[in-house]
Amino acid sequence: MRLSQFHLATVKEVPAEAELVSHKLMLRAGMIRKLAAGLYTWTPLGLRVLRKVEAVVREEMDRAGAIEMLMPTVQPRELWEETGRWEKFGGQLLKIADRKAQDFCYAPTAEEVITDFARQELKSYKQLPVNFYQIQTKFRDEIRPRFGVMRAREFLMKDAYSFHLGQESLAQTYQAMYDAYGRIFTRLGLKFRAVQADTGAIGGNASHEFQVIADSGEDVIAFSDGSDYAANVEKAEALSPAIARPAPSAALSRVDTPKQKTIDEVSAFLRVPATQCVKTLIVKGREGLVALCLRGDHAFNEVKANKLPELTDDIVMASEEEIVAAIGAKPGSIGPVGLPESIPLIVDRSAAVLADFVCGGNTDDTHYTGANWERDARITRVEDIRQVVAGDPSPDGLGTLRIARGIEVGHVFQLGSKYAEAMDATVLDDQGKAQVMLMGCYGIGVSRIVAAAIEQRHDDAGILWPEPMAPWRVAVCMINPKGQAEVTAAAESLYSELAARGIEVVLDDRGLRPGAMFADMELIGIPHRVVVSERGVAAGTLEYRARDAAESRQVTVDELLRLFG
Amino acid sequence: MRLSQFHLATVKEVPAEAELVSHKLMLRAGMIRKLAAGLYTWTPLGLRVLRKVEAVVREEMDRAGAIEMLMPTVQPRELWEETGRWEKFGGQLLKIADRKAQDFCYAPTAEEVITDFARQELKSYKQLPVNFYQIQTKFRDEIRPRFGVMRAREFLMKDAYSFHLGQESLAQTYQAMYDAYGRIFTRLGLKFRAVQADTGAIGGNASHEFQVIADSGEDVIAFSDGSDYAANVEKAEALSPAIARPAPSAALSRVDTPKQKTIDEVSAFLRVPATQCVKTLIVKGREGLVALCLRGDHAFNEVKANKLPELTDDIVMASEEEIVAAIGAKPGSIGPVGLPESIPLIVDRSAAVLADFVCGGNTDDTHYTGANWERDARITRVEDIRQVVAGDPSPDGLGTLRIARGIEVGHVFQLGSKYAEAMDATVLDDQGKAQVMLMGCYGIGVSRIVAAAIEQRHDDAGILWPEPMAPWRVAVCMINPKGQAEVTAAAESLYSELAARGIEVVLDDRGLRPGAMFADMELIGIPHRVVVSERGVAAGTLEYRARDAAESRQVTVDELLRLFG
Repeated sequence: MRLSQFHLATVKEVPAEAELVSHKLMLRAGMIRKLAAGLYTWTPLGLRVLRKVEAVVREEMDRAGAIEMLMPTVQPRELWEETGRWEKFGGQLLKIADRKAQDFCYAPTAEEVITDFARQELKSYKQLPVNFYQIQTKFRDEIRPRFGVMRAREFLMKDAYSFHLGQESLAQTYQAMYDAYGRIFTRLGLKFRAVQADTGAIGGNASHEFQVIADSGEDVIAFSDGSDYAANVEKAEALSPAIARPAPSAALSRVDTPKQKTIDEVSAFLRVPATQCVKTLIVKGREGLVALCLRGDHAFNEVKANKLPELTDDIVMASEEEIVAAIGAKPGSIGPVGLPESIPLIVDRSAAVLADFVCGGNTDDTHYTGANWERDARITRVEDIRQVVAGDPSPDGLGTLRIARGIEVGHVFQLGSKYAEAMDATVLDDQGKAQVMLMGCYGIGVSRIVAAAIEQRHDDAGILWPEPMAPWRVAVCMINPKGQAEVTAAAESLYSELAARGIEVVLDDRGLRPGAMFADMELIGIPHRVVVSERGVAAGTLEYRARDAAESRQVTVDELLRLFG
Repeated sequence: MRLSQFHLATVKEVPAEAELVSHKLMLRAGMIRKLAAGLYTWTPLGLRVLRKVEAVVREEMDRAGAIEMLMPTVQPRELWEETGRWEKFGGQLLKIADRKAQDFCYAPTAEEVITDFARQELKSYKQLPVNFYQIQTKFRDEIRPRFGVMRAREFLMKDAYSFHLGQESLAQTYQAMYDAYGRIFTRLGLKFRAVQADTGAIGGNASHEFQVIADSGEDVIAFSDGSDYAANVEKAEALSPAIARPAPSAALSRVDTPKQKTIDEVSAFLRVPATQCVKTLIVKGREGLVALCLRGDHAFNEVKANKLPELTDDIVMASEEEIVAAIGAKPGSIGPVGLPESIPLIVDRSAAVLADFVCGGNTDDTHYTGANWERDARITRVEDIRQVVAGDPSPDGLGTLRIARGIEVGHVFQLGSKYAEAMDATVLDDQGKAQVMLMGCYGIGVSRIVAAAIEQRHDDAGILWPEPMAPWRVAVCMINPKGQAEVTAAAESLYSELAARGIEVVLDDRGLRPGAMFADMELIGIPHRVVVSERGVAAGTLEYRARDAAESRQVTVDELLRLFG
């Protein structure tokens, strides 16, 4: 490609709303242009990168035996009614009425449509297992679309759905997809981790997220320094401390703590470390209020608490009024000692091994010191309801947990029978008996990968693409202000030579000043840059610089070609 | 690909609503499955064909210098308001309100979005000409979706838009696209014609349709047997007859024609050929009624009449009441003789050269014989308002017109300044002065091509794909009921040998009976079939049959390989 015949449009200024580095750089490099909130046009440059990601995803899906197909983006309400998701999916589901007032949605995902397809197409166990996928535009009506294509409303997704008779077959395909995802992100040159994930509202048995490691990531993951263990912090188990609870040694004593409400305040006021305090949350349970106790320095994990039988799917904190009415004190002074018997008291594993701790006094502006479980406060049940922290032991018993931030770019799920049962998708087994199929689903955020890669790989000058994602592998920059025929010929010849070897090369023949040209090539992240100039042609050398190298160096044409095998 | 690992699902019965051969065959071959009215899932088999068409379109667009990009499918109302098309586009525009009650549409086309992109991206004449394209899902909310993917609501389209300073540049790119379209349809192995088309409501100067010739086509095209001339009949000019109007030789005479209303009835009743009759249509013009006279055997061409200054864009016939009120007789007895002076009388070129003709008497149940222009009836103006018929002289003066039916698969337009002006898309010219850009637009119905190819190429057994569109080029059918190792080895070896040569091959290893296997391969239209059987392995031969050949023949492996170069 000659840049003079391409539409490259780097820009200097980007709107203030672009917070993330990837969003800024994609706008500055001219990869995307905003059409409306959460809607982006992929420019020719951006599309080149997007298509490279798409191609790697397709190759590895095909290699893993998945079969590509294509479902409509517009899906009828009736199918979504069958699974109850027409209502349950929430505001992200973009609902559409056609000219005949029939209801449809713009697909945010395709479990319903593929299950409908499967129940018509698959009749016999002999057709199983089968794994269908598509690479297709999806729409989620985010309430606050932001971060460019990282959280766009319209985006490109690879979604795959497998069908099985029996869990063993599902587990096999799940593993095949897990492996394929590993190959995809490895081939794309990304640092990533496959982490255990909560299966959440989508249901099912097993689930892994594929997280690109980046400081700006919205997800927090915990991984072991001594094993392959990795999990979303939402899911990572905090083991019971190895120590037993010490015997009480202090007497229970109520102290005044005027206006001291948070753990930090109380800890500082009483000169007791937060690790020796117990904090108590009051939430609304299925049958009245529930108290949750955690060690003062630990964060509450809502996803884990969601699974407690006492609580509802969406945890709602009790209001101040409700707390005062039930306990007689305001939040900030609540604690387990003397809590009304009607309120179940769920204690986190790490809080449960404390002795002589500080906790709220259940009277405004007071706390207890020297509090002890059993002696002073009952325990309804000990549970894991906190977020893990760096330094916690790994749940698999091997090593210690570390914490990193990640961007979710892939997700694999064992859905089990959830959708097939709701939609009566059965096949005949080898006995001729109808059996509900089991399903897996496997998603990759194709457009999000582009942004995630930039979050992981950039510097002050711009993007550092992994080679497989770069719009071009090599840029030949021609510096020829005098329009000398030898310089043009040398640049054209090098360009042709590289192209003939199947190396994706772009010739910057726009006639810009060297500085502007180099800045553009660095901004758009071309991995290899070669300069053809009058001086170089005279000396028989080229100036070569790798995008991630500190300096350029002089090479001959032969040396350059050897760089690319 | 091994069919045992593919999802091939041919079916015997198709719904009665499938009228077109292509719709029936695509359902029977299992290429598409209906999700809802006008919404189709492309199965793995169907998608293979669709992607092949897409690839050829992309290659030729790239070769012609167009640059691929990707716009959102969901577009904001504001841009459509700028051109007035939010209202004017009509019911085909699928309108969508998001969760914040902002209005959007599912793009049926992208003139507004690309013009908005261009007015932001293009600042200088130096960036022109430029031609952007995308291959993307579109939606048109057809009032009566039918014919499968031929007239689906959601469909795959290639749309390109070029920007220019000056008509000469627009004409050049238009020609380049015209040529590229010719290469695309030629490479796809289709019989087609590029025909002059009416520019219709989209406006602009020049326009050609690319029509795949097929008896089931909805479009009618006229082409010369003596030149390259071809046009949609809507557009094809009917020349003035070479003969002059004969002098009157008969006297005007009113005759009773009780209950004879149509030309056929009057012609039979009076024993006068339809070619010697004049029929008169009364339509509502901008300022009252207008009469249109045609030769009895000719069809009225509304598109041509639309352009008459007396008439409105959408021609509306006058009602019986209006006609009776204005003329005093009902439709069926109306004619030019004695028509009120207030009604302009537009006469078709072929009707204008008649003498001694029959026409309505303007009194119920009467006609005139021996009528003559000028002597008996005035002529306001002579115009071309009829459809051409086979045998008419070609408008370019070379040869005679023939008539064929076609399926529109491509359309190129010179839009001129229509959109750029409405949206104020300008660039600075070499004098630094802002100039409105000129635009061209170029569409290809990618998914429709699949159906059109089937309409053109099929037989009783199924589809006959042109090789570039076939899901696979060769099918190796293994007949091995005894499970003999030599037969399996021979089939696998042939499969590998073909695949190694880059020939797209499918191995039918499903273990079906030969008849069922052959029927499937014929239905899905694989161009070349090879049978590996016990007998063949023993004889060292293969049974080969081309899809379009009457008989199979025995070949050696070497002979077979030579077939594919």
